[in-house]
Amino acid sequence: MDVDIGNALGTTPGLTTGTLERLDDRVADAHERISHGMDADEFGYASLTLPETADPDAIRMATDRFDRPEAVLTVGIGGSALGAATLSNALESDVDAYVLDNVDPDHVRGLLDDLPLGDTVLNVVSRSGTTAETLANFLVVREAMDRAGVDWTERTLVTTGEAGNLRRLADTHDLPALDVPEGVPGRFSVLSTVGLAVAGLQGHDIEPVLEGGRDGMDALSGSLFESPAYAYGATTYALAERGALTNAFMPYTESLETFAEWFAQLWAESLGKDGVGQTPARALGATDQHSQLQLYRAGPADKLVTLVRPTERADTGIPETDLEGLSYLGGSPLGDVLDAEFAATEASLAAADVPNVRIEVDRVDERALGELLYGMEAACVLYGELASVSTFTQPAVEWGKKAARGLLGGGNFPEADAVDDKRELRVEQS
Amino acid sequence: MDVDIGNALGTTPGLTTGTLERLDDRVADAHERISHGMDADEFGYASLTLPETADPDAIRMATDRFDRPEAVLTVGIGGSALGAATLSNALESDVDAYVLDNVDPDHVRGLLDDLPLGDTVLNVVSRSGTTAETLANFLVVREAMDRAGVDWTERTLVTTGEAGNLRRLADTHDLPALDVPEGVPGRFSVLSTVGLAVAGLQGHDIEPVLEGGRDGMDALSGSLFESPAYAYGATTYALAERGALTNAFMPYTESLETFAEWFAQLWAESLGKDGVGQTPARALGATDQHSQLQLYRAGPADKLVTLVRPTERADTGIPETDLEGLSYLGGSPLGDVLDAEFAATEASLAAADVPNVRIEVDRVDERALGELLYGMEAACVLYGELASVSTFTQPAVEWGKKAARGLLGGGNFPEADAVDDKRELRVEQS
Repeated sequence: MDVDIGNALGTTPGLTTGTLERLDDRVADAHERISHGMDADEFGYASLTLPETADPDAIRMATDRFDRPEAVLTVGIGGSALGAATLSNALESDVDAYVLDNVDPDHVRGLLDDLPLGDTVLNVVSRSGTTAETLANFLVVREAMDRAGVDWTERTLVTTGEAGNLRRLADTHDLPALDVPEGVPGRFSVLSTVGLAVAGLQGHDIEPVLEGGRDGMDALSGSLFESPAYAYGATTYALAERGALTNAFMPYTESLETFAEWFAQLWAESLGKDGVGQTPARALGATDQHSQLQLYRAGPADKLVTLVRPTERADTGIPETDLEGLSYLGGSPLGDVLDAEFAATEASLAAADVPNVRIEVDRVDERALGELLYGMEAACVLYGELASVSTFTQPAVEWGKKAARGLLGGGNFPEADAVDDKRELRVEQS
Repeated sequence: MDVDIGNALGTTPGLTTGTLERLDDRVADAHERISHGMDADEFGYASLTLPETADPDAIRMATDRFDRPEAVLTVGIGGSALGAATLSNALESDVDAYVLDNVDPDHVRGLLDDLPLGDTVLNVVSRSGTTAETLANFLVVREAMDRAGVDWTERTLVTTGEAGNLRRLADTHDLPALDVPEGVPGRFSVLSTVGLAVAGLQGHDIEPVLEGGRDGMDALSGSLFESPAYAYGATTYALAERGALTNAFMPYTESLETFAEWFAQLWAESLGKDGVGQTPARALGATDQHSQLQLYRAGPADKLVTLVRPTERADTGIPETDLEGLSYLGGSPLGDVLDAEFAATEASLAAADVPNVRIEVDRVDERALGELLYGMEAACVLYGELASVSTFTQPAVEWGKKAARGLLGGGNFPEADAVDDKRELRVEQS
């Protein structure tokens, strides 16, 4: 993973090389703090050691019980789902991967109607074993398997903590069970059992993903000028401090669309606290160039745009044509159009003084995904250190969970009382 | 469509009823301007008359030539694709709808490999007939049909302007062709041939969509307190003026996920100019509640959150369970969990003084979609009037198109020279 921050210099808001050089002392201090946290296996920091601590053999042992299923259905939410989905949607496989990460009845029913339940692996992920959405969906899917005459105990893989409902369920029914690693918040868990089991079920090699992560780990150093991840973390932090409160994250390949969602989760949940943080706006090149670019280029100067792309790819030729005015397209690779759009967007932003950063990998494969995922995590942790926030907690999410649980009758949570404070000013269609 | 702006009062940033009352005089003036534009069929304003001017019979005549295909593939980008996709993804049909709105070679090839080309309708949409991405994809798909022995002239529907490449192609090969309406920018074209043809091909009734739009049209009035669309437009404008530069748009149903994308296009491209505008951040409830909510509740006070939901839906029961601590879930409808999550998020934001607005429809059906789409368009046009921006143009998007075309050798465009100004500061993974 290479990072080019040149187009974040001299923009509005923007940095100078002087800003970055001064900031580099704080990067060195932060790196020391991070390294210490990694060495001591501290909560959160432990996430950054996963490329070395994750156990691909354990994952393979659990997933090998299922012989190349037709489909995998992950039931989980937030950090328990998005990492696996990022890998699934980036890598091709003949094993289809689906995710139930919402409690929408229509959607759940529609998905269950379409799935070949007899040849689907049900992959349930919840550290606590009590997440309301996940457990409710699990109960619904299990019943659907029962009704379809499918023995769910033969089709279910559980990834959970040491104790709790799901662990007991696995023990009772002798289900293959993977351990959620200690000290790793969900949004940082993609390089563990939580993110990698589905990749294993889909027949992908897990080792290269971890190797990519290890490359990122090895590249961490006390200077932003030497570590791509820190270059990204320090630049985004410094731009946010100067008013770039929105980070439009825009991969130029469909295969990384879910990666942008994963990034949005990581960034929002880790850094959005104490009145600071940076709003991740998910975008997709070239598609959103035909809409969002208007705002990025000409709207409020409160943004930076992160452009992500592979520099190589398999390509498809555009046929020659006699359609008027289109001969310039005929005979070129389709990818040339995408590359031109990328260059045009980058130039368009730069010419309007909008800061933008380029992140590149050679191609979208297992190893590059490991690099990207690890790189963004390390960038996020650095940003958190520089901004002095509690990167690894999510009190506002917990607040909402308690309120929901209280409303559902799952316990006495004072948070639920806040619904009574709803203020109404309704304007109705007559 | 009903709008409740109560939770935008007294927040940070926030409004008072006094603010809204004072603003209402300007809403009256803006409504007069909008009404005049609609009556005179002025560029852009003409979009708001589509519920009356669109011709469902013409759409049906063109789409009836194809007898319930297995799939529809729309080739278009931006406003030529997202409206149709919004309807497709919200309404169930046994005709699958796909969209090629990007020029990613992997993605295009993967999609073409999966499609039953012999029973797919190819729906090409471009007003000018020269959009590079659309025409390049069209050429690729046409060739794939040729190779598969499918007569593309029997499988292609064209939606385009009065003249140009696609019009000539339709004339030459006697293809069914629909007219892109005059005076309607792409992002405002969902209630026209551009957005409705796919709905027709999928077997949906078009009339109720237009009727829903007509309800919205009838509800426009000189006061924000009487028109839900204007209540939303005026509130979002006033909040943006006070610092809510991000609008997190969060439907609580999977079926409206693409509607949020469509909204993001409408909002960004129409209002993001002259240094003003509001960044649409697409979200999805309850999923993003487990990540983005952290930022919305506790991050910078530069946001409003728009919560959208149907008040009725088909539901699915959660089976009874003896899993410890989960008995509170067993036996309830799954939708109750979603409703509790909605209420929890709304309360969580309000308790933290984050402005939020609730938009409700009875259920997700043709009519409600017409209401929602029209309502957001009218809200956007009102916001544009209040902010004195040129709502219906997109100069920054055009700039990027010219630069890309220049880079591809499609003409002499000085914009393309800007790529030479790229500044480099690369940090590479060693």
